Amino acid sequence: MPLQKSDLSDAVINTYYAVRGPIVARAQQLENSGKEIIYCNIGNPQALKQKPLTFVRNTLAACEQPELLKSPNIDLMEDAKEKAHYILEQSKHGLGAYSESKGLRFVRKAIADFIISRDSFNGVEQNADFENIYLTDGASKGVQAALTLLIAKKNDGILIPIPQYPLYSATITLYGGQQIGYYLDEESGWSLDEQMLEDAIQQALAKGIHARAIVVINPGNPTGGVLTENNIRMVIHFAKRHNLTILADEVYQENIYKPGARFISFAHVMTSMKEKKVSLFSFHSVSKGFFGECGHRGGYMEVRNVPPEVIDQITKLQSISLCANLPGQILAYLMVSPPKPQDPSFQQFADERSAILTELAKRAKMLEEGLNSISGYHCQPIYGAMYAFPSITLPPGKSDDDYCMALLEQTGVCVVAGSGFGQKPGTAHFRTTILPPTEQIEKVIDALERFHRTWK
Amino acid sequence: MPLQKSDLSDAVINTYYAVRGPIVARAQQLENSGKEIIYCNIGNPQALKQKPLTFVRNTLAACEQPELLKSPNIDLMEDAKEKAHYILEQSKHGLGAYSESKGLRFVRKAIADFIISRDSFNGVEQNADFENIYLTDGASKGVQAALTLLIAKKNDGILIPIPQYPLYSATITLYGGQQIGYYLDEESGWSLDEQMLEDAIQQALAKGIHARAIVVINPGNPTGGVLTENNIRMVIHFAKRHNLTILADEVYQENIYKPGARFISFAHVMTSMKEKKVSLFSFHSVSKGFFGECGHRGGYMEVRNVPPEVIDQITKLQSISLCANLPGQILAYLMVSPPKPQDPSFQQFADERSAILTELAKRAKMLEEGLNSISGYHCQPIYGAMYAFPSITLPPGKSDDDYCMALLEQTGVCVVAGSGFGQKPGTAHFRTTILPPTEQIEKVIDALERFHRTWK
Repeated sequence: MPLQKSDLSDAVINTYYAVRGPIVARAQQLENSGKEIIYCNIGNPQALKQKPLTFVRNTLAACEQPELLKSPNIDLMEDAKEKAHYILEQSKHGLGAYSESKGLRFVRKAIADFIISRDSFNGVEQNADFENIYLTDGASKGVQAALTLLIAKKNDGILIPIPQYPLYSATITLYGGQQIGYYLDEESGWSLDEQMLEDAIQQALAKGIHARAIVVINPGNPTGGVLTENNIRMVIHFAKRHNLTILADEVYQENIYKPGARFISFAHVMTSMKEKKVSLFSFHSVSKGFFGECGHRGGYMEVRNVPPEVIDQITKLQSISLCANLPGQILAYLMVSPPKPQDPSFQQFADERSAILTELAKRAKMLEEGLNSISGYHCQPIYGAMYAFPSITLPPGKSDDDYCMALLEQTGVCVVAGSGFGQKPGTAHFRTTILPPTEQIEKVIDALERFHRTWK
Repeated sequence: MPLQKSDLSDAVINTYYAVRGPIVARAQQLENSGKEIIYCNIGNPQALKQKPLTFVRNTLAACEQPELLKSPNIDLMEDAKEKAHYILEQSKHGLGAYSESKGLRFVRKAIADFIISRDSFNGVEQNADFENIYLTDGASKGVQAALTLLIAKKNDGILIPIPQYPLYSATITLYGGQQIGYYLDEESGWSLDEQMLEDAIQQALAKGIHARAIVVINPGNPTGGVLTENNIRMVIHFAKRHNLTILADEVYQENIYKPGARFISFAHVMTSMKEKKVSLFSFHSVSKGFFGECGHRGGYMEVRNVPPEVIDQITKLQSISLCANLPGQILAYLMVSPPKPQDPSFQQFADERSAILTELAKRAKMLEEGLNSISGYHCQPIYGAMYAFPSITLPPGKSDDDYCMALLEQTGVCVVAGSGFGQKPGTAHFRTTILPPTEQIEKVIDALERFHRTWK
């Protein structure tokens, strides 16, 4: 008899990943039958017309085909050529050979330098060890590597924010662990409250679930919140008290729109506290920020306060699938070592970067205001990341799943229901990206307004 | 307290992946301290001087930087430009956007066509459904996806050949399943014997282990064996009798050196038998064959005789990490749709292809003969794949692990001990690739001969 659904484990069956769940499957069906769909379900900038950075793609193209570097006619900036030469020399065998399991050494060294320079401010002297950095196929694979390590027994629990990015809930279920949700406070811009964390951990304990780690997403997905240094310090104290490892999902670190705010990493705060006893896994990606290179699946994981014998175990697990893809590794390298002010590509790079970030800030504002102009919608300020997560008032007996499916069928706008991210009982939300071009955002807001007014 | 090794699961601790284990770690140390190492531990062609195919890299470079297509000066073959145009048009958003979770639709359609054309011979009319094809980050990720599905309970077992490629043993351990080894018959060129399979499954049953699937690697890694159609038919009958899913690792399908032999896929034989009740997962990769594009992590998994509700579960699991990397997907596309005889690139492509395959066949022969010239070595014919797995006579009390480590320290030749692949008790082997250039193979054989003569 062929393999049956009943042969599969409960863990597989119970795993649910909303960002590409039934609503998105239906959207693809509709699109294949000719209907125009606006995909607001996923942070996929280049699918919504964001252009790749010229310097980045020139360098990558030259690495793929080094012959290009020899042609006198080719229109490549000198520093893109130099960068490509350097990459090819350092990688030794180009993009077609497996690298070390952790990733190319020179890329990891450049990432360590990037972390040091990003985090050294306010009297903090950051440090970073390139041997504790792992290149991954996008941040998702890094998160999955960390959770493989942290979920050892059936009653091992992982604290995740509610709402959260469903990579976490899906992977925890698949790996046979337990989710411990802690609520973010919507009314105060989705901030993180110590009492909420304590409540969550105590309730889990009462059910026999032993918390092993806490996931924090900063800037927040789907919430758009940005943590303050005090908030981060509180989490580190809390983690220490309860002997938790911290998973800091910092993939939106370049996407901060709140005037005057800056990104503060967990690694920075931990160093400022001279904290050596709390293990930290931090994740970054080439898919977000202003690169938006989702299709290249590049990212890294940095590990701190973890003993060498655990590092060896991580390396062993990473080695099984050999290495992260090399073009993704090279993009991670270019992300942490962009053109410098004296380089010929600098101006163009800076202009493209600033155009993208300015545009994203504008769209965030426009979307936030648009959503709040709809009666029955309420959207917190979008301070960071790439999403809005408005609360919506629904007719009695209806769920946000019903709402989002009907919205798709009637308007072609594809968003993800709040149920997929988690929310307080009795509330309803959906997540939409801020990424569509402004004229499309107008269209989306219009469609939402009309739909919300008439749907029952 | 930071995360400790004692916090990790037994599954993590017990996982062992020899291809990048302690011997390779030591080799990297030695290399970093200035010693010359010949890496024969891994099938990584471009690290051993194999050149990427011009057509492939030209097309990929143009996809990364479409501006190149507009330059009148650029030295790209017309059909590489056309191919790049077609890819960019079909992918809709280029290489920087996430694709569907299964992979780009046009790539999956091209793979289905490739399977149909590869397998339609001897009166068999092959079929293939692109919706049952998944693009993966190398074949390893496909194998891991299949094993995630197949290992549901602690006493679920997977039949694997002994010797095997340690991806299987490592992943089965990590996912909490049981290995059921079946021996290949070394003296008859590592062939597969029905009685060995029956013995293995009965012995497992006696221990309470329930076999769920059988892994077959054809052409064989590390053995170099190539299965006959009869052998494959036997496996399919056996799988049907015991209600097993078949995992057919066919990544070396282009690497056959036995004169007159051709690659026969499990899918071909299954279709010729009109077998509809045995589930089959087949794997292919851009890392081997004559592409050798390991660093790009491209590959696919084709699923047959699996009901739609299981397909939906696979798609759901694949969606969690969004999609395979796009350059890898494009390479898979180029692998299944190479230049045609009328295309301008055809001659160069065919010449490069044939140079690589001719050279590999020559090296296989040279290595086989070289190994067999050493007293105390015995190597089966290398009919396919990229490895030799000679049996070696050792001094009493010594293991092949000891042997390989000492070999590395004394000669700089890095091979993997037989223990990492599994072998009959009382025998000793190692695996070496056939990939080094011929002058290096001579050096390796010399070094092995001298080492073997003197080591005690």
